[in-house]
Amino acid sequence: MSEDLARAALRYHAEPRPGKLSVESSKPLESQRDLALAYTPGVAEPVRAIAADPAAAYQYTGKGNLVAVISNGTAVLGLGNVGPLAGKPVMEGKAVLFKHFAGIDVFDIEVNARDAEHFIEVVAAIAPTFGGINLEDIAAPDCFYIEQTLKARLDIPVFHDDQHGTAVIISAALQNALKLAGKSMAEARIVCLGAGAAGLASMRLLKLLGAQQITLVDKDGVLYAGRPDLNDYNRPYAVETEARSLAEVLPGADVFIGVSAANALPPELLAQMAVNPIVFALANPDPEILPATAKTLRPDVIMATGRSDFPNQVNNVLGFPFIFRGALDARARVISDQMLIAASQALAALAHEPVPASVLQAYGLDALAFGPDYFIPKPLDPRLLDMVAGAVARAAQA
Amino acid sequence: MSEDLARAALRYHAEPRPGKLSVESSKPLESQRDLALAYTPGVAEPVRAIAADPAAAYQYTGKGNLVAVISNGTAVLGLGNVGPLAGKPVMEGKAVLFKHFAGIDVFDIEVNARDAEHFIEVVAAIAPTFGGINLEDIAAPDCFYIEQTLKARLDIPVFHDDQHGTAVIISAALQNALKLAGKSMAEARIVCLGAGAAGLASMRLLKLLGAQQITLVDKDGVLYAGRPDLNDYNRPYAVETEARSLAEVLPGADVFIGVSAANALPPELLAQMAVNPIVFALANPDPEILPATAKTLRPDVIMATGRSDFPNQVNNVLGFPFIFRGALDARARVISDQMLIAASQALAALAHEPVPASVLQAYGLDALAFGPDYFIPKPLDPRLLDMVAGAVARAAQA
Repeated sequence: MSEDLARAALRYHAEPRPGKLSVESSKPLESQRDLALAYTPGVAEPVRAIAADPAAAYQYTGKGNLVAVISNGTAVLGLGNVGPLAGKPVMEGKAVLFKHFAGIDVFDIEVNARDAEHFIEVVAAIAPTFGGINLEDIAAPDCFYIEQTLKARLDIPVFHDDQHGTAVIISAALQNALKLAGKSMAEARIVCLGAGAAGLASMRLLKLLGAQQITLVDKDGVLYAGRPDLNDYNRPYAVETEARSLAEVLPGADVFIGVSAANALPPELLAQMAVNPIVFALANPDPEILPATAKTLRPDVIMATGRSDFPNQVNNVLGFPFIFRGALDARARVISDQMLIAASQALAALAHEPVPASVLQAYGLDALAFGPDYFIPKPLDPRLLDMVAGAVARAAQA
Repeated sequence: MSEDLARAALRYHAEPRPGKLSVESSKPLESQRDLALAYTPGVAEPVRAIAADPAAAYQYTGKGNLVAVISNGTAVLGLGNVGPLAGKPVMEGKAVLFKHFAGIDVFDIEVNARDAEHFIEVVAAIAPTFGGINLEDIAAPDCFYIEQTLKARLDIPVFHDDQHGTAVIISAALQNALKLAGKSMAEARIVCLGAGAAGLASMRLLKLLGAQQITLVDKDGVLYAGRPDLNDYNRPYAVETEARSLAEVLPGADVFIGVSAANALPPELLAQMAVNPIVFALANPDPEILPATAKTLRPDVIMATGRSDFPNQVNNVLGFPFIFRGALDARARVISDQMLIAASQALAALAHEPVPASVLQAYGLDALAFGPDYFIPKPLDPRLLDMVAGAVARAAQA
């Protein structure tokens, strides 16, 4: 990040008053009468109604449009275990995006609980407050256990965005990139570098979408069957192979998905990939390989990154606001695989549609059409709300 | 409550959209640049700053102006143990008042934890999110243990409004009522009917203000020394006395404070109180005795209730917004007795000041001056913010 951007970001967070959120009354409060409706004695009426029928909370309180963005700060951005308090700017930022893109109210909740069981107890206890729970920036492998346990225990949607939000965008982008490459999901040989929350969940969703040849690689090499250090969460993704390293597995592959670290894709390995190689270099802010480097080496590359200053940004903001909008609108009790697939397919489909003038204007572009430089919708595209949230809500109802 | 008010209250909570709160971005979000400042990559800067120095959270996040209104729903209004979800309208209402009267952002948090230890663990775990914690509608005696434990454990103000908020308003009102009666705090014989959160905390604060003759009465009678059913929280208030009932203790008393139930003060007992009897009949919505009944019997009565349609409303909204405003402004780590006393004295003093025209207008009154019909400030008095919050902040700094 430039020094100018860093300074501006601190100023943005501090002035004119600290933070990024304001909690406002959504109802009039002009008179004594209003006070008597909002608080005592009038407030006793909705209390009685909800005590008699818990579902009335969706009618008389903000629960049905309120999502908790909850983190224990163990895996914040690329910065790691900075703790709950230091994660607060990220959670507030997520709240801002939820509201801006999908009209969803969010409380950011920073939890001082590194232990998975402790964290689960805390989140379960405060769950009555909310209509949905977005888990955020929790280290693997705890994040898998935490999400599974809370999902089973609570009657509201629980969603770990670093897993499933990322998976939805990656899978949408890959569906379109494969079309451009003239390849199919079933036949493509896919290599994913990074086997944390994003990597595992993305490969899981790609399998649901038909992918059959996936190899995961983490910092210790290929996830091969029998590797002694695997755990219950990554073991199902281990494959029978002689390959032990990225260098051994990438030659001839159709797809490289990097959710790892800066410069983790050596150019000489990209050179050995199959024709029309698909490279998603998603490490932020510095990708596994820079687009300019990749294109010089392989003019046939089809590329996405996590950055807004390159084409095809894989950005979770394309997913979570609309996935939750759809889930809340349908009052879904869980966010199912069908809903994730619906979101992914809706996103992929939108990139094929003609781009409205307002979107071109927002990005200062003259034209934008489906192709190697545009196969993922832009975050400021106003059609996302109806198309993605609508698809998710329909999948929830089905 | 009238049927009309009840219907209007349900409509108010349901339309045009459910609930009373909206979470808004407090910073601009117009361009890609704004997005880059509010979220990635810019947000990494405040994260790093807070990781290096936790105090920076007050500079770069909303923590310093954010209070949690937290309840487990075990003692909601006069409705009792309705549970956390049914308490949500009350907690949202409190959030609305915090913002309206003191500009404080509030997240209402409903906790599914009846057990005191469980509740404490949950609140302590989410505390990094907040600059202060307002406990609400938690049944006695757990509320005492919960507040004491959290106060000792956390480095932000923890305040149980049903205790100390009520105590501040009652003690402010009593200071002024005693002036009108020509009596002193030290000499007044005070009887308090109700020995829950409000009763015990109010008597505690009155003692700090010099009261020396206090008898508490609960549903089982007088709290006398040696009464076998007392607990660690009400035992310190038991006194050496032969009296066992309200009827035995009220004759000759100077002050009756009712935090109990409708019609709990029999008129024949009021008749036997000392000259210029002070009667605070605070049960809501139906007081321990109606003002008209009391005045017919004892024209010399000096009276307050909890209701807005009678003179001298003892209402917590006169306290909590300004106590927290002062505590947050001073970045106090606790709300000390000195801060409670400062709030109480500032409230009492304000009732002696000439009432501005804007306040008269808000209440449709021609005149209002210190006397039996006006010895507590009105909730819509805009001077409360500066006077009470200022006094609290100064006490915190001292």
